[in-house]
Amino acid sequence: MRKINKKKPKAIVLFSGGLDSATLLYYVARDFNPVCLTFNYNQRHKKEINCAKEIARRLNVRLIVLDMPFPDIGSALLDKSQPIPTELSNSIPPTYVPGRNTVFIALAMSYAEVFGIEKIFIAVNAVDYSGYPDCRPEYIAEINKLSELATKTGAQDRPIKIEAPFVNMAKAEIIKLGFNLSVPYELTWSCYAGGDFPCGECDSCRLRRKGFEDAGKTDPLLSA
Amino acid sequence: MRKINKKKPKAIVLFSGGLDSATLLYYVARDFNPVCLTFNYNQRHKKEINCAKEIARRLNVRLIVLDMPFPDIGSALLDKSQPIPTELSNSIPPTYVPGRNTVFIALAMSYAEVFGIEKIFIAVNAVDYSGYPDCRPEYIAEINKLSELATKTGAQDRPIKIEAPFVNMAKAEIIKLGFNLSVPYELTWSCYAGGDFPCGECDSCRLRRKGFEDAGKTDPLLSA
Repeated sequence: MRKINKKKPKAIVLFSGGLDSATLLYYVARDFNPVCLTFNYNQRHKKEINCAKEIARRLNVRLIVLDMPFPDIGSALLDKSQPIPTELSNSIPPTYVPGRNTVFIALAMSYAEVFGIEKIFIAVNAVDYSGYPDCRPEYIAEINKLSELATKTGAQDRPIKIEAPFVNMAKAEIIKLGFNLSVPYELTWSCYAGGDFPCGECDSCRLRRKGFEDAGKTDPLLSA
Repeated sequence: MRKINKKKPKAIVLFSGGLDSATLLYYVARDFNPVCLTFNYNQRHKKEINCAKEIARRLNVRLIVLDMPFPDIGSALLDKSQPIPTELSNSIPPTYVPGRNTVFIALAMSYAEVFGIEKIFIAVNAVDYSGYPDCRPEYIAEINKLSELATKTGAQDRPIKIEAPFVNMAKAEIIKLGFNLSVPYELTWSCYAGGDFPCGECDSCRLRRKGFEDAGKTDPLLSA
């Protein structure tokens, strides 16, 4: 088990249990002591929460699960009566959860300020992604401006920084980085459909498969 | 009971059950069909939630109570081991809840987008207030910029607007407006201390008392 180096500063990592945020967690853990925030928002693929817990346990980092009451009719990711699309589209897909990253980052700002933490890391990515508006670099730039005004530390010229180091990386680059960091990808979960095995057809499965193919790697979740 | 005019557009009102947001609710109800969002965040003065429900029932408007897991050690408003200050200060007081309005507005943006609602109203006020950073006009301007990027409707050039019509009003002006609108102030709750009767000494009680005095009105909560 990884030893905790208490000399490293703390950082909050928004950690879903998926491929990107697991890579981010291992990436951040090199320089920080991560505190993971994981959200239970009644997502179909709630299984990812258990994946997050197991990965955090392996890495010996703190993980806090927070319940978040999103309106469940607003997304195919929450409402089981809506089908999960099986084809990539050019428009924002029905798996989009309105306002999700803003809610997650807002609550992370609250925890960061209370815990005296200066940085929040989020694994948004605007290259191999589903077109969600709150994954774009201009969104991250804007929420950093908000952070300067929204909190006490911001008002004292020490705003909490929201960092998205993967925002301009291709999925294959993220995966290659993760292999270098020994991320246990067999423990990560990406599929939206919420079954016992990845469906292989949803946006998230397709982007994951393409990422591993482009990286020239085998997905250990599928070969396990 | 007020009749619902279905021709009016819907609007979300962040409604705590306090004096300012009750006035806001009656103000908004003239032109919109309000949908109230009320937060249970384990605040000491949870009593305000019942006040909000009773006022919404009187006005015949929909109210949704949402649980929000703020870190409870971060504020005297949540942590009963911390005293509620009884003197107004020039700095941000310990009743400040880090990130509160950003979390509330972020989740309201989610509900607005899902319900097809174009406006969110919030009763922040930067005149007779406790110095919270997320009550200032520059904060409201910035969160409107974020709204342009954070959501699907924003990305489609129809951003949800966050309106704070009381932000530059003195408490006495808000109260005078409320009397004109027949706001049932005897049902509103402001005291932070969470007792059966207003403590009269916390920031919120003091600001309320000064507001009624400046408005030349009697507070019906105290004379009831």
